[in-house]
Amino acid sequence: MVSHTRLLDFCVACFEKLGLKRTDAEITAENLVFANLRGIDSHGVIRMKIYADRLRAGGVNRQARARVVRDRDTYALIDADNGVGQTASTEAMKLAIAKAEKSGVGLVGVTHSSHFGAAAFYAMMALEHGMIGFAATNSGATMAPTGGRAARLGNNPMAIAIPADKHPAIVLDMATGAVAWGKIFLAAQENKKIPNTWALDKNGVPTDDPRAAVDGGLIQPTGGYKGYGLSLVIDILTGVLFGSGFSTQVLSMYKELDRPTNCAHSCAALRIDNFLPLAEFRRRVDEIIDIMHTCPRAQGVERIYVPGEIEHETERRRRSEGIPLSHALKEELSALGVELGIDRTI
Amino acid sequence: MVSHTRLLDFCVACFEKLGLKRTDAEITAENLVFANLRGIDSHGVIRMKIYADRLRAGGVNRQARARVVRDRDTYALIDADNGVGQTASTEAMKLAIAKAEKSGVGLVGVTHSSHFGAAAFYAMMALEHGMIGFAATNSGATMAPTGGRAARLGNNPMAIAIPADKHPAIVLDMATGAVAWGKIFLAAQENKKIPNTWALDKNGVPTDDPRAAVDGGLIQPTGGYKGYGLSLVIDILTGVLFGSGFSTQVLSMYKELDRPTNCAHSCAALRIDNFLPLAEFRRRVDEIIDIMHTCPRAQGVERIYVPGEIEHETERRRRSEGIPLSHALKEELSALGVELGIDRTI
Repeated sequence: MVSHTRLLDFCVACFEKLGLKRTDAEITAENLVFANLRGIDSHGVIRMKIYADRLRAGGVNRQARARVVRDRDTYALIDADNGVGQTASTEAMKLAIAKAEKSGVGLVGVTHSSHFGAAAFYAMMALEHGMIGFAATNSGATMAPTGGRAARLGNNPMAIAIPADKHPAIVLDMATGAVAWGKIFLAAQENKKIPNTWALDKNGVPTDDPRAAVDGGLIQPTGGYKGYGLSLVIDILTGVLFGSGFSTQVLSMYKELDRPTNCAHSCAALRIDNFLPLAEFRRRVDEIIDIMHTCPRAQGVERIYVPGEIEHETERRRRSEGIPLSHALKEELSALGVELGIDRTI
Repeated sequence: MVSHTRLLDFCVACFEKLGLKRTDAEITAENLVFANLRGIDSHGVIRMKIYADRLRAGGVNRQARARVVRDRDTYALIDADNGVGQTASTEAMKLAIAKAEKSGVGLVGVTHSSHFGAAAFYAMMALEHGMIGFAATNSGATMAPTGGRAARLGNNPMAIAIPADKHPAIVLDMATGAVAWGKIFLAAQENKKIPNTWALDKNGVPTDDPRAAVDGGLIQPTGGYKGYGLSLVIDILTGVLFGSGFSTQVLSMYKELDRPTNCAHSCAALRIDNFLPLAEFRRRVDEIIDIMHTCPRAQGVERIYVPGEIEHETERRRRSEGIPLSHALKEELSALGVELGIDRTI
């Protein structure tokens, strides 16, 4: 177990050594540790090494200066200058919230960007403003369109955060693949098998071996053609619409480390009191959560959850007990710390 | 085969006899025949009988006067007065488009409404304005939350329409269940079995018998907890947010015919030239469609489609060749025509 503050400090120090300015280092580290706190370990500090490698190789621009290139009452566009996705996306979400505050709705695109980590991180920024938040991104192609056998679409995720009252917020953060690609990396690292509905091997055959999936394989879309459709639509509402890379033009963060991935993100916020007083909405969200919780359960099921609830409880637990890291991951982080000359350990 | 114009005339005549005013009768009939034209027969004139029954029983208010109850630059709320969903939703989409025209984005809610038919009908209204369109609705509970065995959420669908240039528009119209409920009715009517990933019987057991599903059973969410999450989010972004019914408060259109279903819809439009010149966007959408089409194919696959493409081709074919109706459906429509004293047949 590692305390999240210790892990955060370590990551901030690494990112500063890698050439990010202090605020960028903090936002990026917070985003990764946020994922670990919520139990989404596939998007947590397991990515430190590749972030470091890309920053050192130049594929992520460590001196990036994100610029607002278009700015109207209800929408804006930010050019991330190929820097870390976290900086520009946090800016984008702040801007979307400010626009929603004034105009009811705010939609901000981020173009020429890099991996932005867990999407829920941005969507949840809307919650403290009593708003509904949304974030989505495209990503390196790992899925085939239905009927295909080559990677043409990313496992593009989207997140929606909805405030409740006595209950924690509903936070749906889902990739359009049957599973997040990072979970396959995690399984590979932990020598575990995967369900054979998760991925195809390089020949297009379903596999339960995460290494066979990683070795030129593909994620399967969730729900077949529906997941394909959602992934395609997210690619269009990010990369195509914001003038960034799309489909195979978005590079994998794990290949060609010296070239920008050129992905794009979409951040949006919606004022609730456009339609209902906020307090009433919160009560109604509580009510629908209660309806889910009290639904008669299938045999063997102890409890019914709403999206984000398990993550919320994991966060509460990990904030007090610390974050579990595998031995291999600790070693990897320690080695990175030594390489970068960090004067603290994990 | 029945020509779509003949079918449309027949349905308009029925709706007028049922007490709808001419324009409402036309919009509702157009929406149903639109679904048949596009091959979504589950949402087509197979619903005429239940629409008629609800209008006659009073569950759908035939004298409804939809009113705009809130109206700002970027959003509005329409109270449908429990009339046919098609009238208020068409109004809502027009309003969303007008708002997007001025402000870049338009979001219009519809509350206290009834079944609105195929969601793509509304989303596609944005296309002729060079915009991206979105429509979603909640509906009578037919699905359980993950781990549950009782109906708490509708098979809530959403549709997104995206204009292309030389290619037909991309139109993703998907329910959050493994399958549209109407397809199960269709299978029951045609005495066909269904895949056992589609539905549960009344005991919560997967079934391949559409009648067992219809008899108190449930739809399974698409992709497991992801489909559950999407359905819940749509319920919140319609019924909960717009002050209408949600979860079990939304009645099935097939039960309690004299009571309003009290469902809600969300209609939105986005101006593309907020971000990119429209012509450039159209070219880029063509490009991503070409990338999908030319993806290497899995064995036995003849062709790769994008969402809405099959429907587009079906529509072109059915506009010239006519719409195929089963014998049973023709009989049902003819009987309805006789009951209503319509002076034409199908």
